[in-house]
Amino acid sequence: MSLNRPHSDIENGGVAPVRAIRGAFLDFVADPFFTHEADAVRYHQDGLLVINETGHIQAFGDYATIADRYGDIPTQLYRDRLIMPGFIDTHIHFPQIGMMAAYGEQLLEWLNKYTFPTERKFQDPDYARDMADKFLDELLRNGTTTALVFAAVFPQSVDAFFEAAQARNLRMIAGKVMMDRHAPDYLRDTAESAYTETKALIEKWHKKERLLYAVTPRFAVTSSPAQLQKAGQLLTEYPDVYLHTHLSENINEVAFVQDLFPECDGYLDTYDQAGLVKDKSIFAHGVQLTDQEFQRLSAAGAAIAFCPTSNLFLGSGLFKIEQAKARENPVKLGLGTDVGAGTSFSILQTANEAYKVAQLRQQKLSPFKALFLATLGGARALSLDHQLGSFDPGKEADFIVLHPQATPLMALRNPEPTAKTVAALADLTFSLVIMGDDRTVEATYIMGEKSWG
Amino acid sequence: MSLNRPHSDIENGGVAPVRAIRGAFLDFVADPFFTHEADAVRYHQDGLLVINETGHIQAFGDYATIADRYGDIPTQLYRDRLIMPGFIDTHIHFPQIGMMAAYGEQLLEWLNKYTFPTERKFQDPDYARDMADKFLDELLRNGTTTALVFAAVFPQSVDAFFEAAQARNLRMIAGKVMMDRHAPDYLRDTAESAYTETKALIEKWHKKERLLYAVTPRFAVTSSPAQLQKAGQLLTEYPDVYLHTHLSENINEVAFVQDLFPECDGYLDTYDQAGLVKDKSIFAHGVQLTDQEFQRLSAAGAAIAFCPTSNLFLGSGLFKIEQAKARENPVKLGLGTDVGAGTSFSILQTANEAYKVAQLRQQKLSPFKALFLATLGGARALSLDHQLGSFDPGKEADFIVLHPQATPLMALRNPEPTAKTVAALADLTFSLVIMGDDRTVEATYIMGEKSWG
Repeated sequence: MSLNRPHSDIENGGVAPVRAIRGAFLDFVADPFFTHEADAVRYHQDGLLVINETGHIQAFGDYATIADRYGDIPTQLYRDRLIMPGFIDTHIHFPQIGMMAAYGEQLLEWLNKYTFPTERKFQDPDYARDMADKFLDELLRNGTTTALVFAAVFPQSVDAFFEAAQARNLRMIAGKVMMDRHAPDYLRDTAESAYTETKALIEKWHKKERLLYAVTPRFAVTSSPAQLQKAGQLLTEYPDVYLHTHLSENINEVAFVQDLFPECDGYLDTYDQAGLVKDKSIFAHGVQLTDQEFQRLSAAGAAIAFCPTSNLFLGSGLFKIEQAKARENPVKLGLGTDVGAGTSFSILQTANEAYKVAQLRQQKLSPFKALFLATLGGARALSLDHQLGSFDPGKEADFIVLHPQATPLMALRNPEPTAKTVAALADLTFSLVIMGDDRTVEATYIMGEKSWG
Repeated sequence: MSLNRPHSDIENGGVAPVRAIRGAFLDFVADPFFTHEADAVRYHQDGLLVINETGHIQAFGDYATIADRYGDIPTQLYRDRLIMPGFIDTHIHFPQIGMMAAYGEQLLEWLNKYTFPTERKFQDPDYARDMADKFLDELLRNGTTTALVFAAVFPQSVDAFFEAAQARNLRMIAGKVMMDRHAPDYLRDTAESAYTETKALIEKWHKKERLLYAVTPRFAVTSSPAQLQKAGQLLTEYPDVYLHTHLSENINEVAFVQDLFPECDGYLDTYDQAGLVKDKSIFAHGVQLTDQEFQRLSAAGAAIAFCPTSNLFLGSGLFKIEQAKARENPVKLGLGTDVGAGTSFSILQTANEAYKVAQLRQQKLSPFKALFLATLGGARALSLDHQLGSFDPGKEADFIVLHPQATPLMALRNPEPTAKTVAALADLTFSLVIMGDDRTVEATYIMGEKSWG
């Protein structure tokens, strides 16, 4: 017992620990695609997570080991639950929250028929604010604490999103869509206006509290070469902002891009020639990538957002997980829901379909690999692993409490809700991946404070 | 107003109407794969369903049209809901309820590693009874009112299932698994014992109240030619029982069957040579069927149970819906969850993945087509369409009440929960197919009585 513990933490250059969470904790200390799974997983069946007054993790470990030092601060005990770092969604469209389940089309037709008319509504700031609140509530209900987000083409849609995220103290990355062709008039900007508006939004929002900006050309179909060049100029002027776009989702899209950019050597090259392929660049989908494009993404340190429910819903195809995660030329990889083409806000349901995509390709996606992609892997894809994605001290305390018996069927599947071995943990977490949904998330904490549940 | 209406119904050879349900009703009067969808769908935005004292449908129609005659009997009003015939699951394994989400294997290895040890537990009648109760509760929670069910190899597992189904007054079809090879000793019967035990179970259960029996050889891998012959003998002796088995699910399985039956012309022929391909035969999966096999199934009037969540979970492949539903040689088709290889008890979630399978094959599965398969199509696949699957008077009153705003996200998607046009109904029901789950089912009625909700 150390009654003077807060004092000594402060003396050690820290801040005061203010609360703790006790329960079973799972996170990752290495990538299970490249490290033996038992070595990549960190599991404390009876663990303690100590949070300090700034909402960061002060200490983390076995309760028996660190309770001596932290046992006297207010502690919330979660029995028969599994606590994990918050889920990270590496690709989602906030204006599409109300248009999920739009019937019968593949990518290009789906955009024209459903998406563009829906996004038009986000010109209205009041509407955009209302939807931003609903969108963030839904993310938190599903245990997603950080996301890389497409707003609409209208700067006010970005303001609405960031204001709502700031009010919730969330670490979110977003940007205004840039699109100057192959879209209805009411959604088109120009190369120049996109540049000016984006620049103003970066100045206004990037690094404001926990918020970060992503330069966001929709995709090569809807951005002229001149607009892509302007996006590249912004990345040069602001080297620490992100680039977020779509890449090689659908066969017809790839062919269309090739027609539009005859001077380019494939789809990725349309971005590369504009200086958009960097280590803070995240490309959604990549279902149709060539070997050469995988190599280029690897060399650039860029990331792919794998969006299985969307890829199946739009019939885009089966992403090659094992190629992104090859020992030669690995590419950073996260999971994306891609709502509204995605069919669920739940990263668990997204992992369910990731498993199925792997199975159809005769590959196995273990629950630990899937949950790594959902947490530390996603943080690495977003270059946020120094701040998020695991319970390492110093990181931001965004985490979730999962209920392995959330439904009668899950209670039957998991008569023992707390794993005593790593093998039992693999089995338990696989049931969360396959059978889990929003109901599995009992509570969501942001910077150490309960935000949902 | 007709105060003497019960009397006149009885005089007309009917029985007394005892209750009515008022609300929005959707069912099918034809197959939307072959009939213009608007002609196949029957929709009453303000309808009335009248149930008689035997639990059958006495009358059905627009409230304004038939309320005169039935307006004075006790009526339950469902506002902002959609009422449909109960869902029909044409392939599910009751002993596998507790083993969903078994990791990492494809069909044959999955059977050996997970399924066989699990099914062993159903030798214990107490355990089997407990699981049968949980299984039927879960079906009702998901709006499934009739299912074609594999029990285990043990006759007591069939007794347990039928006793539980009888207690709930359900129309269920089930049978004892026959398997005399390529399985652990503890699960094997013999050709002769399978025959004798099945015969006794048919005598005991077939047509007992609403229960029906299916002769159930697991599949050609685990039944010797002699056992398949015995199954055929049972179908000859009891021409109105069903045949329920698996067919052409996985490539390795098809190759194994070909090795085991060198004298047969393909997988289906192993059943055909034993006299098992008939109009009350239901074959689960059919992912790997040849054109010739589709033709044979069509000619025999046999049915396929399409099980998309299972086919994706085990990586079996993409079923060719459009071939089963071709104008030339159509094959009767229903949806199956195939729990425990299937990943959900929900026929809505099953339809979600059926849509995705179709999309990956560049086909469109409309919500009406999917919901037809889930109701009248399933009833036809099970030769029960004279008793189930729509609201035609005389049919058994098994139906469900769906809530289009069951979750915050569905409420956002469906601000108007009641469709005023067939186009709006298509949009609304597509959201149920893509976003719905057990929560979408607010109530389940069996023979006119509320059984769940």
